[in-house]
Amino acid sequence: MRDPLSSKIQDIPFSGIRKFFDVVSEMPEAISLGVGEPDFDTPWVIRKAGIETLEKGRTFYTSNSGLKELRIEISKYLERKIHVKYDPLTEVLITVGGSEGIDAAMRAMLDKGDEVLIPQPSYVSYVPCAVLADGVPVVIPLKNENEFKLTRQELLDNITDKTKLLVLPFPNNPTGSIMTGEELMDLVDVIVEHDLFVISDEIYSELTYKGKHVSIASLPGMRERTIVINGFSKGYAMTGWRLGYAAGPERIIEQMMKIHQYCIMCAPTNSQYAAVEGLKHCDQEVLEMRDEYNRRRRYLVDFFKRTGIPCFEPFGAFYIFPCIKEFGMNSEDFATRFLMEEKVAVVPGTAFGDSGEGFLRISYAYSMEDLKEALGRFERFIKKLRAEKNN
Amino acid sequence: MRDPLSSKIQDIPFSGIRKFFDVVSEMPEAISLGVGEPDFDTPWVIRKAGIETLEKGRTFYTSNSGLKELRIEISKYLERKIHVKYDPLTEVLITVGGSEGIDAAMRAMLDKGDEVLIPQPSYVSYVPCAVLADGVPVVIPLKNENEFKLTRQELLDNITDKTKLLVLPFPNNPTGSIMTGEELMDLVDVIVEHDLFVISDEIYSELTYKGKHVSIASLPGMRERTIVINGFSKGYAMTGWRLGYAAGPERIIEQMMKIHQYCIMCAPTNSQYAAVEGLKHCDQEVLEMRDEYNRRRRYLVDFFKRTGIPCFEPFGAFYIFPCIKEFGMNSEDFATRFLMEEKVAVVPGTAFGDSGEGFLRISYAYSMEDLKEALGRFERFIKKLRAEKNN
Repeated sequence: MRDPLSSKIQDIPFSGIRKFFDVVSEMPEAISLGVGEPDFDTPWVIRKAGIETLEKGRTFYTSNSGLKELRIEISKYLERKIHVKYDPLTEVLITVGGSEGIDAAMRAMLDKGDEVLIPQPSYVSYVPCAVLADGVPVVIPLKNENEFKLTRQELLDNITDKTKLLVLPFPNNPTGSIMTGEELMDLVDVIVEHDLFVISDEIYSELTYKGKHVSIASLPGMRERTIVINGFSKGYAMTGWRLGYAAGPERIIEQMMKIHQYCIMCAPTNSQYAAVEGLKHCDQEVLEMRDEYNRRRRYLVDFFKRTGIPCFEPFGAFYIFPCIKEFGMNSEDFATRFLMEEKVAVVPGTAFGDSGEGFLRISYAYSMEDLKEALGRFERFIKKLRAEKNN
Repeated sequence: MRDPLSSKIQDIPFSGIRKFFDVVSEMPEAISLGVGEPDFDTPWVIRKAGIETLEKGRTFYTSNSGLKELRIEISKYLERKIHVKYDPLTEVLITVGGSEGIDAAMRAMLDKGDEVLIPQPSYVSYVPCAVLADGVPVVIPLKNENEFKLTRQELLDNITDKTKLLVLPFPNNPTGSIMTGEELMDLVDVIVEHDLFVISDEIYSELTYKGKHVSIASLPGMRERTIVINGFSKGYAMTGWRLGYAAGPERIIEQMMKIHQYCIMCAPTNSQYAAVEGLKHCDQEVLEMRDEYNRRRRYLVDFFKRTGIPCFEPFGAFYIFPCIKEFGMNSEDFATRFLMEEKVAVVPGTAFGDSGEGFLRISYAYSMEDLKEALGRFERFIKKLRAEKNN
């Protein structure tokens, strides 16, 4: 029998996070600071709307693009939050989480050989999605000294005449880095001059702890070249509902819709009805969750400062990205030893790209109780490592 | 600004069904016999499980492959129904409806230029998914005289040295055709001899009205070369829940999982918990819905016999595919005139491929009341057409 598999798919590695959690899943007693999802249940208002939807028997397909009412609410939300107007009928597509939106955007926009600039460390899907869409991922290694923001120079250095697309993953998973309006503005004329398009993954936009989240789509000349990816998983604690959206110029959204129509059909109906209520009535709940993340964030920043582990202050998402280079181990060895000796799971920075080497991703989407216990063990662990080193 | 779109995506047409329903949606008074989804609400046991899941706050991601308990139940179901054993841990992948499974299977298996045999008339997604995965769709036009089944000779006639994959869409949307074990057996040695793989789309398997549904995966030598696609949308009336699955050899499922992991993450959690209950407790509800479809099916078969509209008896899904060639109009003109003059929407056969020319897809996933009213109008309409012809 011949090989059933395409050559392309075999070249794509499995996610490093997954590999790591295969080990963790065998250790039920471990504390995990590893998973990238809110520890909060979805707010009750939203769950209640989901329950009522099921009670009423609204269990049918929605239109391919998604419930009109939801697209209207999203359009209002985006105008309120990022100050960009999108026509709910033609410029907003409801997707299965942010993930599907990223995939559909790349499939709609990439021809074979088109280069996609992917700043790293960043979410694990960008590179595989680019490869699956026949694009050529070009990784831009971000630097700790820049707080893992993308600089104008780094962007310039990586543009070739084949570059078509730039992925902008801020607020960032795994570093927690954000980019301010000014910092984004620094990129705009480069993007326009080189006629690039942008996939701006703003799934963590609600989790911004300094100033307001700024979308590059709101900057001059950028609306027409940007697909904004967002959703309900992070800010609304709705990961399991699988609901996201893409907003952008009609010409691109229309083609993404075609892919969505044939490959997915529509996003889950129940989740769509529930999200309408979320957008209408959950501003307060979203804020409260953010405040709680912020409290934990400050605790972690203080902890790393106190223990002398270098770590820039992250102002987005729910991750912190401490540097563990002083211990002379690579990230994976450190995380593995920490897991084995102290039963705490954190993710090696390298799961998010080679430029994550020497760093750990620690999620603070965990209770203060778990965080305190886990960091107590971390402190004990690094004391041991420092003692080993001095012997 | 350069064109943001890939050339590939622009070559893929929008679905003909969609085009037609853009017209229908502007006519609120029309009766539609057009949509391909059950008219039943999801059985209460399943909705209740969904409600309890939300009450309990089970709103988090599941593992990428899906809830283990669901995969175990699916594995038992497949053994019971199609007599093939699949390891729930490595050979079953939970997807967002059957659609995602088809897409992921093609993405996992096709290299550029690989030919995919697609019998038509059939579901609108196969050709676009093949093109998006860089495959070359090779359409096999099925024949009314064969009740739109795929024959051994038709298969043989379309195989080249580039053929890799065969899509088997039975029970069939839009024709209602099924293939029996014997008829499938006729294809097996051709498939094995030419070393082909099969995507067997069995989403309508529960809706079989003559004998038992047979999966080609259960025939000698076929398990290792078949990806079975199925789900809950049709048999369990769960379209809006977006829940399906793929079962097949580990080597292929593993790679489909990789695509699923990066591009989708996981299927909706609530739907997964609910489907577990469906598989455990809804055999009776599924049977009752099937009996009701069957009653309608017989009514339609009688109707077309009585009115002298040629139509083979369909034994699967919830569609009937009458031939309207006597009226000397193409399918689209007929359907459009029928809609305009009698306010009833049916889908032109050509929405499912050129070989659907001269036929209509009529769905009987509608109440007897609507069916009777719509067919009354159909009878009036064809009398008028026949009278016009005789003048």
